[in-house]
Amino acid sequence: MVKHSSPAVTEVDLVERIRRLAALPRGGGLVLGIGDDCAICRPRGAAEDLLFTTDMLIEGAHFLPATHRPEDLGWKALARGISDIAAMGGEPRFCLVSLALAPQADGKWVDAFYRGLLRLARREGVALIGGDLARGPQFMCDIVVCGAVPRGQALLRSGARPGDAIYVSGALGGSAAGLERGAGRAWRRHLRPEPRLALGRFLRCLGSTAAMDLSDGLSLDLHRLCRASRVKAEISAPPIYPGATLRQALDGGEDYELLFTAPPRVKVPPEFEGLPLTQIGTMRRGAPSVDLDGAPLPPRGWDHFRKR
Amino acid sequence: MVKHSSPAVTEVDLVERIRRLAALPRGGGLVLGIGDDCAICRPRGAAEDLLFTTDMLIEGAHFLPATHRPEDLGWKALARGISDIAAMGGEPRFCLVSLALAPQADGKWVDAFYRGLLRLARREGVALIGGDLARGPQFMCDIVVCGAVPRGQALLRSGARPGDAIYVSGALGGSAAGLERGAGRAWRRHLRPEPRLALGRFLRCLGSTAAMDLSDGLSLDLHRLCRASRVKAEISAPPIYPGATLRQALDGGEDYELLFTAPPRVKVPPEFEGLPLTQIGTMRRGAPSVDLDGAPLPPRGWDHFRKR
Repeated sequence: MVKHSSPAVTEVDLVERIRRLAALPRGGGLVLGIGDDCAICRPRGAAEDLLFTTDMLIEGAHFLPATHRPEDLGWKALARGISDIAAMGGEPRFCLVSLALAPQADGKWVDAFYRGLLRLARREGVALIGGDLARGPQFMCDIVVCGAVPRGQALLRSGARPGDAIYVSGALGGSAAGLERGAGRAWRRHLRPEPRLALGRFLRCLGSTAAMDLSDGLSLDLHRLCRASRVKAEISAPPIYPGATLRQALDGGEDYELLFTAPPRVKVPPEFEGLPLTQIGTMRRGAPSVDLDGAPLPPRGWDHFRKR
Repeated sequence: MVKHSSPAVTEVDLVERIRRLAALPRGGGLVLGIGDDCAICRPRGAAEDLLFTTDMLIEGAHFLPATHRPEDLGWKALARGISDIAAMGGEPRFCLVSLALAPQADGKWVDAFYRGLLRLARREGVALIGGDLARGPQFMCDIVVCGAVPRGQALLRSGARPGDAIYVSGALGGSAAGLERGAGRAWRRHLRPEPRLALGRFLRCLGSTAAMDLSDGLSLDLHRLCRASRVKAEISAPPIYPGATLRQALDGGEDYELLFTAPPRVKVPPEFEGLPLTQIGTMRRGAPSVDLDGAPLPPRGWDHFRKR
């Protein structure tokens, strides 16, 4: 939705650039830095690793104020962070919320935003422990969610191996279809995504080799997983949300289902708590890339920095 | 700098509102939530508490792009967070940086921003472990800094008692004077504030009862400390930065010196590593408020939500 005329720098390029600049220092209890769903830190003497993820929600870039109520924005802002914790097989603990408020946002608006956010927070046992507040020309929110996982057991993007089966939970494209339609079940799904926390923990215990959440579209996110694991993915069409198109299922983004891999010896059940788990393909040796039914699938999902 | 026509809601009101809504759940390893410089979390089995602080830096609200170079913005964005860790007597460990980039920001701009940020990060041993990137209509940055402090020993805003002496480090008003002048030593101080990390740790070991960093101006910040500790402050004029006015020293903000209290039995040295430590007054029993030379001092420091 954001128009810009900057040089054609992509998000992947920028993240690589920052990662090179930032070169993680040894020691200090850091296990994993830039490039996965969460960063991982290991406090001295602790039995569990802490997961950290941060997500922005910007008016005009991520939503339009005419169609998104403050309650929904609060829910969604937190759901996106919790989804990153789910993708690592963790449980969320607390969050910090920074808000830049648009001039027209009054106390009632702020209350509604926090009502939506805290409804999800209470259900998932997440404490709101801090944040920052400022005026801005438009609404902007940045949320940090901290979660925990047993020491050394976080599910990473980098664990997939050649021969692993590739799975997705649920059906894809619902959020994109809902955004297009602006009403109905798919629209509610777009407004109030459901992070797959229980599934993430189940996959960690089951022996899944890699996982990530589908936030920017299967074609881009699977490409990222392949890069992190240095493997090539061969897939068929994923399950499509009722009423969505194949294009929306591949490139739509914001489904917040889990994408994961498991070696052939691991028996992945056909569903988990009513949510279908579908094998869509297999990892192969080869340069990181994705093939759909034998033809290259370009990473067309959501990238803030690609020209549109 | 931000103009708005919203109802006269103040930042203090909003934070109170959010704090009531958020009511910290028991358990889960949380020691302190909304309302201090940092939130405190106690990981299971760990020997130290973790500190979390989050700070936004918004074009138009916190700076003007014409006068602030990206290197300076990167430095300042991190310095503000580190200053909160200093105020609790902690040591900083890692940070997460969320950036919304203005349309005109290219790869060179991003490199310069991170160069400034990482220069301070390396000096202070802070790892950049993650973040988020998006396009926005203007530059916006949100930084989370995590620090650590020996279990139960963080310096809080709420620890001041009647009879405690009130101190400030350094001289105040330099940042405001520099912003007005746009050149010289005070201007450089405005652009590249120096967090008082070593002083914070020294005060924690010395037996200081309360501390916070001076980010929004002495008149407002001391008022906040009085509210948190339920005491009344009686002060005289603080040390004034060369060339600054008394008004700038009282209300100017962004000095990032430390404001702290200590009981009479604690011997506070006249300086620490060359930085003067000056007693400016004494805490008394009474409703939270600040008197300057016997007359009430209104909390006039920086509040994003007050009408100007």
